[in-house]
Amino acid sequence: MAKSGKRIKIKRSKKIGLSPGHLIFIGEQNHETVGIDLIDYDIERLTEMKLEDINEASHCKDSPQVSWINVNGLHDVSIVEQLGKIFEIHPLVLEDILNADQRPKVDFFEHHVYMVFNMLTYHQGDKKIEYEQISLLFGKNYLISFQERPGDVFEAVRERIRAGKVRLRNSGPDYLAYALMDVVVDHYFLILEKFGEDIEAFEEALMENPRTDLLHNIYHLKREMLYLRKSVWPLREVVTRLEKSETELIEQKTMVYLRDVYDHTIQVIENIEIYRDTISGLLDLYLSSVSYKMNEVMKTLTVIGAIFIPLTFIVGVYGMNFEYMPELAWPNGYFIIWGIMAAIAVGMLLYFRSKHWLK
Amino acid sequence: MAKSGKRIKIKRSKKIGLSPGHLIFIGEQNHETVGIDLIDYDIERLTEMKLEDINEASHCKDSPQVSWINVNGLHDVSIVEQLGKIFEIHPLVLEDILNADQRPKVDFFEHHVYMVFNMLTYHQGDKKIEYEQISLLFGKNYLISFQERPGDVFEAVRERIRAGKVRLRNSGPDYLAYALMDVVVDHYFLILEKFGEDIEAFEEALMENPRTDLLHNIYHLKREMLYLRKSVWPLREVVTRLEKSETELIEQKTMVYLRDVYDHTIQVIENIEIYRDTISGLLDLYLSSVSYKMNEVMKTLTVIGAIFIPLTFIVGVYGMNFEYMPELAWPNGYFIIWGIMAAIAVGMLLYFRSKHWLK
Amino acid sequence: MAKSGKRIKIKRSKKIGLSPGHLIFIGEQNHETVGIDLIDYDIERLTEMKLEDINEASHCKDSPQVSWINVNGLHDVSIVEQLGKIFEIHPLVLEDILNADQRPKVDFFEHHVYMVFNMLTYHQGDKKIEYEQISLLFGKNYLISFQERPGDVFEAVRERIRAGKVRLRNSGPDYLAYALMDVVVDHYFLILEKFGEDIEAFEEALMENPRTDLLHNIYHLKREMLYLRKSVWPLREVVTRLEKSETELIEQKTMVYLRDVYDHTIQVIENIEIYRDTISGLLDLYLSSVSYKMNEVMKTLTVIGAIFIPLTFIVGVYGMNFEYMPELAWPNGYFIIWGIMAAIAVGMLLYFRSKHWLK
Amino acid sequence: MAKSGKRIKIKRSKKIGLSPGHLIFIGEQNHETVGIDLIDYDIERLTEMKLEDINEASHCKDSPQVSWINVNGLHDVSIVEQLGKIFEIHPLVLEDILNADQRPKVDFFEHHVYMVFNMLTYHQGDKKIEYEQISLLFGKNYLISFQERPGDVFEAVRERIRAGKVRLRNSGPDYLAYALMDVVVDHYFLILEKFGEDIEAFEEALMENPRTDLLHNIYHLKREMLYLRKSVWPLREVVTRLEKSETELIEQKTMVYLRDVYDHTIQVIENIEIYRDTISGLLDLYLSSVSYKMNEVMKTLTVIGAIFIPLTFIVGVYGMNFEYMPELAWPNGYFIIWGIMAAIAVGMLLYFRSKHWLK
Amino acid sequence: MAKSGKRIKIKRSKKIGLSPGHLIFIGEQNHETVGIDLIDYDIERLTEMKLEDINEASHCKDSPQVSWINVNGLHDVSIVEQLGKIFEIHPLVLEDILNADQRPKVDFFEHHVYMVFNMLTYHQGDKKIEYEQISLLFGKNYLISFQERPGDVFEAVRERIRAGKVRLRNSGPDYLAYALMDVVVDHYFLILEKFGEDIEAFEEALMENPRTDLLHNIYHLKREMLYLRKSVWPLREVVTRLEKSETELIEQKTMVYLRDVYDHTIQVIENIEIYRDTISGLLDLYLSSVSYKMNEVMKTLTVIGAIFIPLTFIVGVYGMNFEYMPELAWPNGYFIIWGIMAAIAVGMLLYFRSKHWLK
Repeated sequence: MAKSGKRIKIKRSKKIGLSPGHLIFIGEQNHETVGIDLIDYDIERLTEMKLEDINEASHCKDSPQVSWINVNGLHDVSIVEQLGKIFEIHPLVLEDILNADQRPKVDFFEHHVYMVFNMLTYHQGDKKIEYEQISLLFGKNYLISFQERPGDVFEAVRERIRAGKVRLRNSGPDYLAYALMDVVVDHYFLILEKFGEDIEAFEEALMENPRTDLLHNIYHLKREMLYLRKSVWPLREVVTRLEKSETELIEQKTMVYLRDVYDHTIQVIENIEIYRDTISGLLDLYLSSVSYKMNEVMKTLTVIGAIFIPLTFIVGVYGMNFEYMPELAWPNGYFIIWGIMAAIAVGMLLYFRSKHWLK
Repeated sequence: MAKSGKRIKIKRSKKIGLSPGHLIFIGEQNHETVGIDLIDYDIERLTEMKLEDINEASHCKDSPQVSWINVNGLHDVSIVEQLGKIFEIHPLVLEDILNADQRPKVDFFEHHVYMVFNMLTYHQGDKKIEYEQISLLFGKNYLISFQERPGDVFEAVRERIRAGKVRLRNSGPDYLAYALMDVVVDHYFLILEKFGEDIEAFEEALMENPRTDLLHNIYHLKREMLYLRKSVWPLREVVTRLEKSETELIEQKTMVYLRDVYDHTIQVIENIEIYRDTISGLLDLYLSSVSYKMNEVMKTLTVIGAIFIPLTFIVGVYGMNFEYMPELAWPNGYFIIWGIMAAIAVGMLLYFRSKHWLK
Repeated sequence: MAKSGKRIKIKRSKKIGLSPGHLIFIGEQNHETVGIDLIDYDIERLTEMKLEDINEASHCKDSPQVSWINVNGLHDVSIVEQLGKIFEIHPLVLEDILNADQRPKVDFFEHHVYMVFNMLTYHQGDKKIEYEQISLLFGKNYLISFQERPGDVFEAVRERIRAGKVRLRNSGPDYLAYALMDVVVDHYFLILEKFGEDIEAFEEALMENPRTDLLHNIYHLKREMLYLRKSVWPLREVVTRLEKSETELIEQKTMVYLRDVYDHTIQVIENIEIYRDTISGLLDLYLSSVSYKMNEVMKTLTVIGAIFIPLTFIVGVYGMNFEYMPELAWPNGYFIIWGIMAAIAVGMLLYFRSKHWLK
Repeated sequence: MAKSGKRIKIKRSKKIGLSPGHLIFIGEQNHETVGIDLIDYDIERLTEMKLEDINEASHCKDSPQVSWINVNGLHDVSIVEQLGKIFEIHPLVLEDILNADQRPKVDFFEHHVYMVFNMLTYHQGDKKIEYEQISLLFGKNYLISFQERPGDVFEAVRERIRAGKVRLRNSGPDYLAYALMDVVVDHYFLILEKFGEDIEAFEEALMENPRTDLLHNIYHLKREMLYLRKSVWPLREVVTRLEKSETELIEQKTMVYLRDVYDHTIQVIENIEIYRDTISGLLDLYLSSVSYKMNEVMKTLTVIGAIFIPLTFIVGVYGMNFEYMPELAWPNGYFIIWGIMAAIAVGMLLYFRSKHWLK
Repeated sequence: MAKSGKRIKIKRSKKIGLSPGHLIFIGEQNHETVGIDLIDYDIERLTEMKLEDINEASHCKDSPQVSWINVNGLHDVSIVEQLGKIFEIHPLVLEDILNADQRPKVDFFEHHVYMVFNMLTYHQGDKKIEYEQISLLFGKNYLISFQERPGDVFEAVRERIRAGKVRLRNSGPDYLAYALMDVVVDHYFLILEKFGEDIEAFEEALMENPRTDLLHNIYHLKREMLYLRKSVWPLREVVTRLEKSETELIEQKTMVYLRDVYDHTIQVIENIEIYRDTISGLLDLYLSSVSYKMNEVMKTLTVIGAIFIPLTFIVGVYGMNFEYMPELAWPNGYFIIWGIMAAIAVGMLLYFRSKHWLK
């Protein structure tokens, strides 16, 4: 509940009335030190280091190598501010980087391209998706990436750089940006796999016993889906705008890779839509399973009631104290009555069976 | 009820058949005096005053400074009329300013741009949004803002002007217009936060006990959402038209800020859509919780009825007054019957448990 | 029922196979004489007369003044035919004028513009909207309006002409056409006000007692909404096409007024959509109120049944006629049994209360 | 059932793997001889004849008159093949003519235009629409129409030709094609009238007694609507493409007539959409009427049960056989108990009335 | 379940972080040897052979004949890799060929066109559709097709080549690609026929007895429909892009055939949409049939209960042991009571009949 609650509340209120570009971090507070990794590479050389002071990155702007600066954590506003000064970033972009509640988008500037999207992680325990905002800003020879939390998402790309993969080492920051987007979109498929497994598990559980907590689970799955959709849907437009942009910062040969990311994004979106439909089908299934079970219970009552209520009436009749009731004096009266009652019960049962009410 | 009723009724009827530009105030009547604030500023100077007579504003049209005239209240038609004469405003615009039931829109004229949108305030008590129409009209060196009621919404912007924020003091009325829109859109996030909290509160209440008043609350939340959506949705088009307009009244450097407002508007819209889906999910949850509870009640009746109805039949049998009923004379007949009845009851309970009907 | 039924039936069948332009009146028959009003005006002069013979209007085609010919009633086909000859109207247009079942549209011809839309009137009694088809055909210096029934809708515009309103007297038939459209669209707001009041009344009635007739009322309101929507929705396109047309028959200065009509049309459409959503919300509310009430009834039965069924079993036990039943001989047996039964009843009630079943 | 089943099954399977243009008739088999009518006409002359051999039509291709060849029945593949040779028709078009399962469409070729759409007939008995595929192929001076079954649909147009209607006799095959489309679209209105009557009849039946067969009727109406919609919707695109095409085979003066067909098509589509909404409203009405009736039944049981269950308990008490039960010995005990029971019954009834449970 | 489960899980996870073009087969593993068929043909000659080594195909690239290389199975990555080298295929395309989870799409390269779509087979037993990914890659004089499993789908086309059909033998690989697409789309109609039969069978079963397993069947049908739709919908765009492409690899005369495939695809899509609507109608029908049956059961209980509960009360009254109960001493008291009870029972029955509760 708590996490999902967090997501539904939008903590923009503290920004109201501030001038644009006034830098405040909006997101979950965090007290670890912000880590900054720098990788300088070209086809021949590779330097990796951890920066203590952000000013050590100032050489990157004009270096002949490609520099990838990765900032792990947004809560130290001064680092972002300093980077803004070094790389001449527009104050509204700095504001967007710090506001961990952005809609995926891309903005083109003269000397760099700014992209923001979400990295998703699935928490098996409480079946929630964790959203982490990733900002990428790349120019002619540098790429700066901002993550909310330190994480190993980008490690796979780092490994490929270290392993000297020719295409990555030989291309500019635009291809690096593609590689990072690609790894993030690939993670979306992981989330979808998990959701797929949950949906199937619910389906099987439903067929066995439609319990109420299942309903709440389905409801929460539906809501997670809404947020997932909100996070992925605009990415489609982001990639389209990248493909159609005429910026010189993206090389022609990178375009076919962007198309590939686009295809994957569409696939993710289509799967989300199918899951949404499947979930609403599950809900219908749940509701009719519950109502079916209820019917079974009611039918049992009906059958028992309908058989015994008339019989109870009959025994009541012969419990009356009238002075003159001829049947009472018959020698086999008691056994005749038992016979009549048995006949009535059997007749009722046959009638109910003919109506398919006994199962 | 009353307030919401007000919103659903559209009091246009008194205008039918009048010629366009015939000025009548359409909105809630109000008998306070209309306050007029004037701020003249440029990067160096700042003059603030309260106007008694609207004609004191006539110098603003050609002053070298930026003049911001703020009119608090629309019920004094003569003020609007007078402003119309001074600033040569088209009669249809004057009509729109006075008709507090406008759809957000922007109109471009040769010497000024007219914008209208809504300021929203949330009333915690009756969980209603209050709508206030804001009209902005800006020319080369002046901006006139019209509010339905005096309020402190724009105070934050005034503070920034007084504090000498460079960007605001150094820009024209187009940037001031942006700043005012921005503060209004930021308030929308506040409304969304409140709604988010309400939705969560309903969700928790639902899990505990699905009471009927909850249903009415959800219904009203849904309706508030409809009106909120109607108020925000067209704003998207307003900002798009501002961005695409070729008027000279908006400077190029203001464009990137408009894009920022656009992004925020989209975010508000997306959140509204998610809330709408969440609310309809809540409704489903409510309905199935109610039906689940009903089932529990019915199952209890079934179990009690199904156990005691046959037993009552049995005791009825031995209450019959037949002269010859052999069991009655058995010495342990009474205890044997108790034993049989206990066996039936236990058998029933075991059967019901095997069917998962006891919980 | 009858009226609504009329609307759902489309009486086109008598036209099948006829050649286009074959003039037949399709609509409700009416036996009054068709009235024809003629107003000739310019900024200085004003002549008003009632025409006996439609040929008296033939001078209007080339008169220097603006002529407004208003035809009250469509059932006299010869009048329309004659007008067609005088003003050289295309046979398909004449057919459209006579077929009182048109979708709102506008058609541009070389010498005139043809528009058709609906005038709506609300009948408080049976809560139905009455639809009247209005056709306008205007050329360089004349406007011909066709109404299905004589009505006072256009009287307001006539008054403004008589009162010598400058803008109207000084403009061409395009502005007159705008003024007539405007008065019709303003009437739509009246309809919306009425519907708004009905919706609110239903809402309040629902909270008190969800009766079945309410369901039928909601269903009929929903259906009225469908027809209203069908009538208003295409008007939006009509106004857009007028704005974008390059015909010389519409002056540039009229455009801003058309934009105003457009804004009003959008507002009407948005309100219709909101009412549709509200009505479907009402339906949900109705259904769950009914089911809530049902639950309350069932719970009462459950409680009464669950308490008395076991007690009845107990009294049945001591009504048995076994020869040896020790409790019967106990001196206080009767009172002990009462005590036991009271304890069971109270226990049950406490259990039910703990389950929130008593209210 | 059978007919509707036929429509849902698509008997394309026998075509799989055949090369395109391999001519096979797909539709309902029919063993009557295929009739071929030929009408040659211009403003002065008119020749009508029935063709025995399709080769008699070969003169039509270059005749100065307009030739209308009408083929009644598609099951004789050789006729279509022969026509294909004479008029140089593309094999795929021949395939489309024979495959009586086409989606309405228009294809433009150098020397002719090919159009296909559906003629609808309503069968009152089983409330089903019968679909008949109509193909029109027209060139500079000929029009060939293909019908699945002989029918009198086009008779009205033939009559107009015979009657010497100027516009038809004086125009080319494009106007003839329009006239045929027009008569088909006019028939759609007939279908809508019938559906409108059915909907109203259901509505009235529903208010009286919501029987189950009504549900099946509504379901089938809904399904018929789906197929009707599928048949009409693409026609809109067909007419639009005709209007926008730049083929010389359609004269400019025919365009205004096509616009008229377009307007009618839109009207049919709008009515279908309204009917769909109305039908789903009917379904809601049915379901809530059923549930209302159920409630009434249940309430009766509740009231009877709730009154008599406690009373039965009381009489059970005084049927116990305890040796010491003081009330039994009271002289008026029996009457006092009657009084108490009457009081309880009346009290219950008053309570239920206060709760609005009795009606 | 298992199969459908497979489809919902997306096994992309093993690819995360790999560089693009890193070839891994994603799909169901299979251990048969991958078969490679080669057909070289032109209008005069035809050579057919099975390749052992993929390098035997290297002559195809520049042969004057058309070469069709068909690869049956994707699990041998080296074959795809080798083909990639011979025909200079982009690594991303190779990746797409091997990833049997592609969305239908078409990509244009300088020397070839790459298309991917799904072949569908219906398994009557478990009512599931099996999806097989088909990749086509064609250049100036060769076409390479990749199937997941060996199958006889393309055999029909092979037969047509062998039979020497002129159009196929005389055209390039673009027409061959069309022929293969056509045969695949024709198979979609087969699937639709099967679904149509299932829907009808469900409909009939529903009218007889709404069993629960039917609900699960409908749910699964609905889900199959979702996946079918996802598979067919993008094909529409694929064909549109082929039609609009300006590649020289597709001849002008092939265009009209592509249009034919497009029409078929639209028809499949429309039928899917209709089936979806029909299935959701079936669900409504199921739910209301179940609730109708429940009502019938409940009404029976109500009638039996409502009749016997009062009668049981009456016999209880005369089972009381009051010392003074005058009726008990009446000589015909017993028969009078029987008469009264019969009267009550008949009265109740008449009342219920008047309310239409007995059927």
